[in-house]
Formats: sequence, C-alpha cells, structure tokens
Amino acid sequence: MGETTIAGYDYGEVKPSPVTREELELLKRSVLFGPEDEAALRRAGEVLGGQVEDVLDVWYGFVGANPHLLAEFSTPEGEPVTAYLERVRGRFGQWIRDTCARPYDDAWLAYQEEIAERHTPEKKNKTDGVTSVPYVPLRYLIALIYPITATVRDFLAKGETPAADVDAMHEAWRKSVIMQVALWSRPYATALW
Amino acid sequence: MGETTIAGYDYGEVKPSPVTREELELLKRSVLFGPEDEAALRRAGEVLGGQVEDVLDVWYGFVGANPHLLAEFSTPEGEPVTAYLERVRGRFGQWIRDTCARPYDDAWLAYQEEIAERHTPEKKNKTDGVTSVPYVPLRYLIALIYPITATVRDFLAKGETPAADVDAMHEAWRKSVIMQVALWSRPYATALW
Ligand code: HEM
Ligand code: HEM
Repeated sequence: MGETTIAGYDYGEVKPSPVTREELELLKRSVLFGPEDEAALRRAGEVLGGQVEDVLDVWYGFVGANPHLLAEFSTPEGEPVTAYLERVRGRFGQWIRDTCARPYDDAWLAYQEEIAERHTPEKKNKTDGVTSVPYVPLRYLIALIYPITATVRDFLAKGETPAADVDAMHEAWRKSVIMQVALWSRPYATALW
Repeated sequence: MGETTIAGYDYGEVKPSPVTREELELLKRSVLFGPEDEAALRRAGEVLGGQVEDVLDVWYGFVGANPHLLAEFSTPEGEPVTAYLERVRGRFGQWIRDTCARPYDDAWLAYQEEIAERHTPEKKNKTDGVTSVPYVPLRYLIALIYPITATVRDFLAKGETPAADVDAMHEAWRKSVIMQVALWSRPYATALW
C-alpha cells in the first residue's frame, strides 16, 4: 500500500489511546454502527479507492475557498503554507482508505487519538515542522461533518452499485465520520468528554 | 403557540450569547447553510408540525433503550427521573419547531447558548430542579447527530411532498443540527472552541 511513503503518517507507531474499547462500543451504539456498516465501508473502499484524489480535490477546493478554514493551514499572518497543505493531503487520502478498510481496533483507536491531538495545541504543526496557527477550532471540526459526508455520495454513486447499496455505503460513511469527530473532540473537552 | 405552557422553556428570556453573528455566519458557510435551506426548513416545519410527538417517541425510545444515554436523565445512582424526562420532552418538541421556524438571529443564538449550558455542569438539572448526573458527555452530543438526523427522513416523507423536496428538507435539517451541535460544543471546549 506504500504507506511508508506518506509523510508524517504514523499509523501503528503511536501511543495507546486513553479511550477504551468499551467507550468505543458505546459510541458505536450511539451512532447505530453495526457489522452491516463495516461491510458497507469495505465496499465503499473499493468504490472510492480509485477516486481518492478527486475526493480530495473537492475537499481542498472547499477549504481553499473559505478563508476561515484556509487560515488553519496558514502562518499566523495568513500566508498559506503550501508544503503543509500538501503533506496533510497525503495523510487525508490515507484516512479515507483507513476509514473504509481498517478494523476499528486498538491500533485504530490509538491513531484516532493521534489525529485528534494533531488538531489541537498538543500536536498541531509538529509532524510537519511548520509555523501555523496553534489549533483547529472544535466548532469547525464538527461543522465539517456536513461537507465531508454530503460530498462523498457522488463518488460512491460512480461505482456499478445499485442505488440501495449507495445508500448503505453512504450511511455507513456518515456514521463513521460522526463517530470519529466524537473521538477527536476528546482533547478539546477533556473532563467533560 | 402555547409556548408559555412549556415547563422551563425560556426562549427570549436568556442572556445574550458570547457567540457573535459573524461567527454564526462562518459556521453557516462551513455547513453550506444558505437561504434555500432556511426555506426548506420552513416547509419541513409544516410537515413535521403534526408529527412532533411521533418523532419524540422514536428519539425517547432510542434514549430509553441505551443505558449510557438514559443515565443522563437518571439519578447518580441510576434511577430514571420521570419528571425530568417529561419536562425536557416538552422543550425538545418545541426545539423541533424552533429549528424549522425561527429566524437564526440574536435571540436564537442566545437560546443556543442556553441549550448548550443546560448540557454542562453550568446549568444541567437546574431548570427542572432535579438530582441527576452533572453533565452530558460531549461525545454523545456529537454522536446523536446521527440518529437525530437519520430518523427524521421517514417523517419528512409522510407529507405530500415529492422526493426531491424531501431530500432538500432533510439536507437542511442535517445542516442545522450539525451547526447547532457545533454551537453547543462551546462551553465544553472554551478556549479551543
Ligand atoms: C470532519 C472534519 C475533519 C476531518 C475528517 C479531518 C481529517 C483530517 C485528517 C485525516 C488529518 C491527517 C491526520 C494525520 O496526521 O494522519 C487531518 C489533519 C489536519 N486537519 Fe483535519 N479534519 C477535519 C476537520 C478539519 C478542519 C475544520 C480543519 C480546519 C481547516 C482541519 C485542518 C487540519 C489541519 C491543519 C491538519 C494538519 C494537522 C497537523 O499539523 O498535523 N481539519 N485532518
Ligand atoms: C444532537 C443531539 C442532541 C440534541 C439535538 C439535543 C437537544 C436537546 C434540547 C432541545 C434540550 C432542551 C433544551 C431546553 O431546555 O430548552 C435538551 C436537553 C437535554 N438533553 Fe439534549 N440533545 C442532544 C443530545 C443529548 C444527549 C446525547 C443526551 C444524553 C442522553 C442529552 C440529554 C439531555 C438532557 C439531560 C437535557 C436536560 C438538560 C437540563 O437539565 O436542562 N441530550 N437536549
């Protein structure tokens, strides 16, 4: 999979998550995520696999068109950091594949916490050694659930799959993204998480 | 509208929100919420208006079936507080109507902050004078975006509306709920919001 060539992608090499498997189980129940969703995500991975760059074009287009979002990839003075945008893009693409194909086990949970921290003052900018603003505001992390879930539908529909299965894949994608943002909110909310 | 008969419903009577209209504007852009969504929500209000109790039956059924959610309406020892569940139900029903029909102005923003705080140690339990756990964990607030958005579709589809309009109403509902949860995360994340 060429994973080792993705700059700053440290799946399998990070500390364990403070979130337990039991807490993950309860989150799964809260978003109604079950074995059918896992299966649907595997199929979604097949459909999206060849379109990852196109999906990223849409998302990066959205970020680029919104100064309040581009700011998080920019210097504190507001100059976009191209190398930062590019390096994160590679990891974002891998995240699409991971969301569809990885088992949601301890290694996954550990990397969820890593992604969370990379959005906060704890770790933002460090992986890429860049000078940028210190954190991504939590409200935008939550808000982007909408574009990141709505925009995959067209790509899911490009496969040979019947409409009912596009629906199943799309719902599974929504559940997973919402659950991941819930996990990523942990270092923001700490004791109230 | 009989609003004054809803126990603990204080719309229009709470302090201004610390969130500015400009911040709200940027959140709207982040979830792609525009004038067509406002219009779609007005239509959704017409369709959902007569079904509010049925919608609440589904959501309360979900909460009741999940001990980790029912716990937030229970004593610290785990005994569900019936009066609490019932009083909040009235306000929850009104929230469905408000989400569809209210302008998202300063009064709305102020009540958003009030709803937020009522999920946190700041204000939970106080409105109803009950003894319950001190806060709703942020992760469940985010996770419930899924059931609260997925389950309205059947109700929206019960109107006389063509499928394309059901889609438009449903997307507007999703955007609004995600944006509201983003607003409600403020007292949880404070400086990182
Ligand atoms: C649902 C919403 C979001 C998803 C799914 C998401 C996903 C990701 C992923 C997968 C990564 C790379 C993780 C890794 O290092 O392996 C990442 C990093 C990053 N994201 Fe997000 N993100 C979201 C919201 C946002 C928002 C709203 C912003 C603000 C514009 C943002 C800015 C960033 C930045 C700046 C990084 C690099 C962090 C670093 O310095 O390592 N993200 N995001
Ligand atoms: C998208 C998710 C959620 C929505 C839309 C939502 C909506 C609401 C609304 C509209 C109210 C009444 C506000 C008022 O007082 O006027 C409320 C209160 C409440 N909600 Fe939520 N809620 C969500 C998530 C949760 C979760 C996950 C729980 C945990 C089971 C929860 C537990 C409560 C409780 C206990 C109250 C009463 C708070 C008090 O003491 O005043 N909510 N919620």
